[in-house]
Amino acid sequence: MKSYKEDFPLLRNSSIAYLDNAATAQRPEAVLKAEREFYEKYNANPLRGLYQLGMDATDCYEKARETVRDFLHAKKSSEIIFTRNTTESINLVAYSYALNNLKEGDELLVGIDSHHSNLLPWQMAARVTGAKLVFLDCEMDGSYTKEAIEKVITGRTKFAAITHVSNVIGRVNPVEDIIRLVHKNGGVVLVDAAQSAPHLPIDVCAMDVDFLAFSGHKLMAPMGIGVLYGKEKLLDEMPPFLTGGEMIESVTRESAVFAELPHKFEAGTVNGAGAWALKAAIEYINSLGFATLQERELALTTQAMEELKKIPYVNIIGSQDPKEHNGIVNFTVEGVHPHDIASILDGAGVDVRAGHHCAQPLLKHLGVFVTTRASIAFYNDEEDIHRFTEAVKGIRRMMGYAE
Amino acid sequence: MKSYKEDFPLLRNSSIAYLDNAATAQRPEAVLKAEREFYEKYNANPLRGLYQLGMDATDCYEKARETVRDFLHAKKSSEIIFTRNTTESINLVAYSYALNNLKEGDELLVGIDSHHSNLLPWQMAARVTGAKLVFLDCEMDGSYTKEAIEKVITGRTKFAAITHVSNVIGRVNPVEDIIRLVHKNGGVVLVDAAQSAPHLPIDVCAMDVDFLAFSGHKLMAPMGIGVLYGKEKLLDEMPPFLTGGEMIESVTRESAVFAELPHKFEAGTVNGAGAWALKAAIEYINSLGFATLQERELALTTQAMEELKKIPYVNIIGSQDPKEHNGIVNFTVEGVHPHDIASILDGAGVDVRAGHHCAQPLLKHLGVFVTTRASIAFYNDEEDIHRFTEAVKGIRRMMGYAE
Repeated sequence: MKSYKEDFPLLRNSSIAYLDNAATAQRPEAVLKAEREFYEKYNANPLRGLYQLGMDATDCYEKARETVRDFLHAKKSSEIIFTRNTTESINLVAYSYALNNLKEGDELLVGIDSHHSNLLPWQMAARVTGAKLVFLDCEMDGSYTKEAIEKVITGRTKFAAITHVSNVIGRVNPVEDIIRLVHKNGGVVLVDAAQSAPHLPIDVCAMDVDFLAFSGHKLMAPMGIGVLYGKEKLLDEMPPFLTGGEMIESVTRESAVFAELPHKFEAGTVNGAGAWALKAAIEYINSLGFATLQERELALTTQAMEELKKIPYVNIIGSQDPKEHNGIVNFTVEGVHPHDIASILDGAGVDVRAGHHCAQPLLKHLGVFVTTRASIAFYNDEEDIHRFTEAVKGIRRMMGYAE
Repeated sequence: MKSYKEDFPLLRNSSIAYLDNAATAQRPEAVLKAEREFYEKYNANPLRGLYQLGMDATDCYEKARETVRDFLHAKKSSEIIFTRNTTESINLVAYSYALNNLKEGDELLVGIDSHHSNLLPWQMAARVTGAKLVFLDCEMDGSYTKEAIEKVITGRTKFAAITHVSNVIGRVNPVEDIIRLVHKNGGVVLVDAAQSAPHLPIDVCAMDVDFLAFSGHKLMAPMGIGVLYGKEKLLDEMPPFLTGGEMIESVTRESAVFAELPHKFEAGTVNGAGAWALKAAIEYINSLGFATLQERELALTTQAMEELKKIPYVNIIGSQDPKEHNGIVNFTVEGVHPHDIASILDGAGVDVRAGHHCAQPLLKHLGVFVTTRASIAFYNDEEDIHRFTEAVKGIRRMMGYAE
């Protein structure tokens, strides 16, 4: 198996097995170089300067937008809004779309496998507008059945907030089916693609999704840059969310005329360097190809799950089929708290996440309180997985159990 | 005069005279190194991981918060909220404080020298709450008189949004006097410090300000990181603005218990690398000292203004005293549009800003439509200023005027 670790300065210079990729990715040299390149060669405030350097900065920023458009297969780059992260993208839609379009009697559908970032903004919107929050519940393996979907989507479903790939379960949800049914009933759908964008190709047109959000930092780009895709017609009708510089046509003391898309939603100094480095991250992914990424991630996930299944008292959350996991392997060890598991694994040089994974309602629905999550990226290798599963094998004995 | 350009890769490798520092600063090597260092040594999702790398990332992030606390002389680091930029900081206060505390009959005071970022959010808040937007008007030299301040602040002034240093005029406003008077009348004050933080020491306690906002990118830190300072008592009473991961104590299907300060206001993955590099930027400033910065900036501003004053048909906006400018030299050339001025200067290797500077109501009040702004930083040198003023001297002849 080819090692990609050489491309990642942190992994190249360290012996840790980093298996918390679903929290944030590591950054390849190409991304770190792009970030520096912006500040070394093109740094000015994008969209403002009439001088060459200012135009270069604008050019970087808009080229990045075009790269994202192509990555999502969107029709127009004006449908790509740069935000800080998925959380801000979703909040933007909650404040600007939901507060202005939902009312009492309407239903706001949320998948039970939502990250808190795709739940709390809708709790707020429901509270403010009087719309009713309705949950789409999953089976114990994390899947959504056709029956559950058809039962919960009705003519009252004016908005649905759905997760493409859950950060706990890892399964790809049938978002196309949900979108089709919500549209048939006259509603609008947002897809949280934070966990899918790093692992599988996304085509917003084929999906026919209304809004889609992802974060740069999970895609190997720097922290502080994220994306909201929205259909032009919807974005056009929405009022701005944040207001400030560079999102206006004209301002008087009492009012303002707002700029066209996408700038209407990008108030204040934009993150030009972040966008330029996100472009580099996407180009790095494209140079490898999702097929390569998926093949590697499936092989490593299979290795991890097969080994974990051999260990007594270890239970894997969600499907037992590695194909349904997109690198996310969430598990419990009977009698051992995940905090202890994470600490013991840390001692063995393995970085995993322990806790509620910002998905408390899902964990409660699945009947677990807290879990341990290993999340695998293509730049992990067999040795990382081996060290991880070997360390899990010894955990119960270390905690004083006979086996 | 010592040259600091060696510290700045872009300036070191280029011959341009970068005089658009008020739009965004250039970045010193120390900041670029810190950004990379985070990703190379400490990169994990801050505030979440129980493993060593995750704790290192958290440590970087919280050390940066402590550096900012010290920089602003705030009492507690929990009063320091990391945002994306000044614009987001101000919007946070508009949505979370103003919408929940203002009502019809109240007055919302805004300085006429506000950047659009410190005006549009208050137009929104006034529209939503029914509070009346009231303007504090300045004199033609940009100054606020004692009489104007005392006339406009009354018992109805529940909130005042004031600019510390205007991005058009450059003068330090008497924010302490305004704050004292608003407080006496029972109101609350936000200070926009976007243009002051890079040029002068700020002491939020001595100022007794309620909220203060600034951007990292104008302070030589990367784009995508900013700060909101708020008094603990006020922040504690405010509801969260953005909601999502890592700003909660617990979440059920229907509701959430929010985390303590400062995390309540930092939803989603935080910009750990940006914060770490902001720390480096502040340390770089501290290593030089504001006295050094101010001495250099005043010398260069004096040189620029003295030369400009010699040129016929050139009018400097604001005070004619370089001490009142903090590096900002805004001017018009009779008969020549600022867009042409900026293009001609660009041709001479001088980068300045032309337009309305996101301050249309101020320009209208001053009786100008658009202007050209040179904004000076301590890392500029006499040669930059010389090239700038020499180029301005030739502009009218280039546009076909006899003199």
